[in-house]
Amino acid sequence: MSPEIIFDPYTNLYSKATSLIKSSEVRDLMSVTGRSDVISFAGGLPFIGGLPSEDITAAMDTVIRESYTDAFQYGETEGRPPLKEMLVEVMAGEGLHCEPEHILVTTGSQQALDLLARIFINPGDTIIIEGPTYVGALAAFRPADPSFVTIPLDENGVVVDRLEELLKTSRVSRPKFVYVVPNFHNPGGVTMSEERRGRLVQLAEEFDLIIIEDNPYGLLRFEGEPLQTLASRDRRRVVYVGTLSKIISPGIRTGWALAPPPIFERIATLKQGADLCSPSLSQMFAEQYIRQGLWKKNLESLRPIYRSRRDAMLRALAEYFPEEATWTHPQGGLFIWVTLPAYVDTTKMLPLAILQKVAFVPGSAFFADGTGVNHMRLNFSFADEGSIDEGIKRLGKVINKEIRLCRALGLDTV
Amino acid sequence: MSPEIIFDPYTNLYSKATSLIKSSEVRDLMSVTGRSDVISFAGGLPFIGGLPSEDITAAMDTVIRESYTDAFQYGETEGRPPLKEMLVEVMAGEGLHCEPEHILVTTGSQQALDLLARIFINPGDTIIIEGPTYVGALAAFRPADPSFVTIPLDENGVVVDRLEELLKTSRVSRPKFVYVVPNFHNPGGVTMSEERRGRLVQLAEEFDLIIIEDNPYGLLRFEGEPLQTLASRDRRRVVYVGTLSKIISPGIRTGWALAPPPIFERIATLKQGADLCSPSLSQMFAEQYIRQGLWKKNLESLRPIYRSRRDAMLRALAEYFPEEATWTHPQGGLFIWVTLPAYVDTTKMLPLAILQKVAFVPGSAFFADGTGVNHMRLNFSFADEGSIDEGIKRLGKVINKEIRLCRALGLDTV
Repeated sequence: MSPEIIFDPYTNLYSKATSLIKSSEVRDLMSVTGRSDVISFAGGLPFIGGLPSEDITAAMDTVIRESYTDAFQYGETEGRPPLKEMLVEVMAGEGLHCEPEHILVTTGSQQALDLLARIFINPGDTIIIEGPTYVGALAAFRPADPSFVTIPLDENGVVVDRLEELLKTSRVSRPKFVYVVPNFHNPGGVTMSEERRGRLVQLAEEFDLIIIEDNPYGLLRFEGEPLQTLASRDRRRVVYVGTLSKIISPGIRTGWALAPPPIFERIATLKQGADLCSPSLSQMFAEQYIRQGLWKKNLESLRPIYRSRRDAMLRALAEYFPEEATWTHPQGGLFIWVTLPAYVDTTKMLPLAILQKVAFVPGSAFFADGTGVNHMRLNFSFADEGSIDEGIKRLGKVINKEIRLCRALGLDTV
Repeated sequence: MSPEIIFDPYTNLYSKATSLIKSSEVRDLMSVTGRSDVISFAGGLPFIGGLPSEDITAAMDTVIRESYTDAFQYGETEGRPPLKEMLVEVMAGEGLHCEPEHILVTTGSQQALDLLARIFINPGDTIIIEGPTYVGALAAFRPADPSFVTIPLDENGVVVDRLEELLKTSRVSRPKFVYVVPNFHNPGGVTMSEERRGRLVQLAEEFDLIIIEDNPYGLLRFEGEPLQTLASRDRRRVVYVGTLSKIISPGIRTGWALAPPPIFERIATLKQGADLCSPSLSQMFAEQYIRQGLWKKNLESLRPIYRSRRDAMLRALAEYFPEEATWTHPQGGLFIWVTLPAYVDTTKMLPLAILQKVAFVPGSAFFADGTGVNHMRLNFSFADEGSIDEGIKRLGKVINKEIRLCRALGLDTV
């Protein structure tokens, strides 16, 4: 918030929701990390330089030549049917088979999360999230004023045992939904195991829950075998949320929800008031980009780039980070999650890192209750290998210094 | 709503907001009026065929050639600064002078209305709207569960005397805001007089209110002199909402809010959770379209087309509609508002009109309380002159028949 609004003359006019939202640390950081001399592992930016500009031009030319009067006009609130047919093809790439009429196109998958929050959550309602969880999901859910219940992640994804225990002992009022990112978690970097996927869907059936499956990175797998989506196990219990942001482009803001018909209708009706429809221009561009097969070409070029950058980051972490640190080994996606000794507070460490011209996102941003202070999220998709090595080297120095300081002050035994 | 959801297994999971929203009649109509043999006056579609495709290609080529890695990447939540500079120029076209840093780019102006509703309205809060009002504003405001207070429109815009009376007698709890469309009202077709603009802003000052000024059509004036915007009279009291939908294209979903800094910050923070950012591709296209002066060329070509279509509709109304009907004479914009005898219900008449292959929006859609049943909104921007004449002829027959029927049944004396 800018200093000029310390004295806000409109304070008595705001809604309660206004007091629940806060600017995310990720966003506040953007302004600093946009400085070109800072090596930023803070964003969640896909690598766009790999999109061939001639492919973009080819797809856009087709749109303008064949149908610019549609591309520049209002479209259906639910999204354009020809794009939906292409999204069926995209989901089939992960073994999820569905019908176009159950797909609702949204303005990025972020909008799907916002609309889902609003159709399900009354103030005080329990919802289940992972810890850590996607910071944008917290931003989407918070204005609806839910009671967050956090289930931890481990290397096999969300700890389903803990969820089961919670549901069976009825320690919480009946949750409205469980929100999960099963593949290459943001920020966790981990993937939910096959066995846990099966049990999660069983629990949803047993306790009459909705699962929101957010899968932005599933197609960005660069090793191991793909696992079955939750939605393909149970279409009645799972609302699947997808996006083209990581496989084509975030600048077109094209996401979607795959939902059972009654939920679909309610999202669509709320979307009318939210933005009428998603951009036709983006939808038709995406349709052509997929129809012409360019998306597969792009994916095939992205995977080895991301794999190589992940490897560079894993090598650098092993070399420069202290032995007290641990981190995840993602098989895809964009992020690595680092765990430091419990006495280190990464939020306090961030300004020191920025002074050393390197940035990350502190762990507490990914927990509803602000815990997780000894973690950090590192993005490996945007910086090149050389910058990754240099950035992790700088960050390692900052961490080592911080650990030495904590020890000198006796904070490591608290 | 589709028939399959009569038995909805998720009923006990929905929020209260879900029960407040309803699919707009405008949207439900879209599916019918998309049939090519129906002459539709129902939509609010601008005429896109007038956009020169070579201009679109020119602007898009510049975007892809000069900066595709930005156009296809995430952007700032508040919008891209170079676009904001262009929007300053657009607003200056109506005599509204402002600074780019007070402009927040939204996904269509519809999103600005949605975010404003959410930052101001607690359930039960009073808000003031015009009667009739923009149907999309009702869709944006309803999920926040306000208490709507309606002030009527006449040929000089909202009846400010009635607002003053209401505020002075304290018959309602203090309103959070007043929502108005001062120029070429949708659906009313009327323009707020200079004198009323002055008094409205004075009342806002006196009673410590916010005014939301929604101005999508101001630059589409084809006769008479432009009037000063409310925002240029008082930037502290007025949140101005603009859009490129009617002057360039709705398919790019590019709108904005011009707001005092504390309100700006709150909209921006909520927007992060709503869709992270508006499409960079659209923003950069719009920036180029304005920078290259193409928007002015487009406006200059649109105005005579719309004027000619309005004239065709006014001529046809005079020729085919019964003498009991009255209608507004807009000096710009896209809509004419028709008033029929009080005993005519246009919602009931709509299916008969569609059987005769002509469509309109029934008046009740534009009132929070479902009154206004003897009105209809007619759009004159999308159909050509020949279709307008034929469509109004068909509609005149339907109305005449309905009036004769009501008289035969003695309903006209009720």
